[in-house]
Amino acid sequence: MAELLSETVEVRTSRRVEVIDITRPVEEFASRVGGSGILVVKVPHTTAAVTVNEAEPGLMEDIAEALLKLAPIDYPWRHNRIDNNAHAHIAASIMGDSRVVPVVNGRLVLGTWQRILLVELDGPRRRRVSLYYMKAGD
Amino acid sequence: MAELLSETVEVRTSRRVEVIDITRPVEEFASRVGGSGILVVKVPHTTAAVTVNEAEPGLMEDIAEALLKLAPIDYPWRHNRIDNNAHAHIAASIMGDSRVVPVVNGRLVLGTWQRILLVELDGPRRRRVSLYYMKAGD
Amino acid sequence: MAELLSETVEVRTSRRVEVIDITRPVEEFASRVGGSGILVVKVPHTTAAVTVNEAEPGLMEDIAEALLKLAPIDYPWRHNRIDNNAHAHIAASIMGDSRVVPVVNGRLVLGTWQRILLVELDGPRRRRVSLYYMKAGD
Repeated sequence: MAELLSETVEVRTSRRVEVIDITRPVEEFASRVGGSGILVVKVPHTTAAVTVNEAEPGLMEDIAEALLKLAPIDYPWRHNRIDNNAHAHIAASIMGDSRVVPVVNGRLVLGTWQRILLVELDGPRRRRVSLYYMKAGD
Repeated sequence: MAELLSETVEVRTSRRVEVIDITRPVEEFASRVGGSGILVVKVPHTTAAVTVNEAEPGLMEDIAEALLKLAPIDYPWRHNRIDNNAHAHIAASIMGDSRVVPVVNGRLVLGTWQRILLVELDGPRRRRVSLYYMKAGD
Repeated sequence: MAELLSETVEVRTSRRVEVIDITRPVEEFASRVGGSGILVVKVPHTTAAVTVNEAEPGLMEDIAEALLKLAPIDYPWRHNRIDNNAHAHIAASIMGDSRVVPVVNGRLVLGTWQRILLVELDGPRRRRVSLYYMKAGD
């Protein structure tokens, strides 16, 4: 019997735009629950995103910079008449609010350099990362 | 026992590039089928995309504008020798043809401001949105 | 009972930046395993990506070109102090390391023009594509 198991991880961000490695708590959840299946790593936010890439500090700043070139902060976006964070919504909508990670025997299936990254685009804030794990039957 | 359940939603778009909130019919499908699992919201098209973000009208136009800056309509793309919509294919390939949404007890797991958005990049057309729901066992 | 089945496909790329149609081996895997469920097509790499779009040769070059406009090779990215491929990591992190494809009765659910594309951003290399198929119970 397949089951859907979930958990929420809290992450405190410290800058307006920032990339944070959140692999550890996701690994811990998968390890605790065990089994095999598909894990959705998702933010319930519209100004943050999730991706998978290398957690090299320089690269994490590069990813943030590239997103701000794609959706500049200082641009007359229509949404800025309401709230001053259109860039964050736009970049998050393109990158995506989730990534899917397979789990085999309680371990995340990631390549050697792959880490799960939370992309803060309108911080600093307290963010939630939601884990939904569709576990295959035993 | 896990099951795969599906449905197709039809959406008529009215402009060449346009972002449309399609959350309602996806919610209705999840509610009708009930249970918990993982829902894939997908377009079978190559010139439209799916994302999750806020359905604020100004922002929806901003997202469209940002995608056209990323992949301008008037640019000598190679694909335009065949069909005049390379921008639409490119933007759709980057944003993605699907998003994954968890379902718990027949309700979509979305954050307060998150809505499911269809991104039309080469309309107006009649579009299909395919819902594939992997439902966990009872 | 739901099961998680997997396979790895090897792809040899021949250029630094290149888009390759990998639909065939994914179709063969789905057909061989049969049944219905959700298939994750994923690379374990951080300088390659996966997407779904049309496999028209001109368009495949356009997608590569658009990604290099988004993340130029010749730009003082911080990661280039370590390794000369920041552009590849950045573009891969935005496009994504995976796509999800539903499977019904052993057939991939793709639209008429949709193909599964491997996006090489730092080749030529030997790449792996990992297939994880969460198959619903019989």
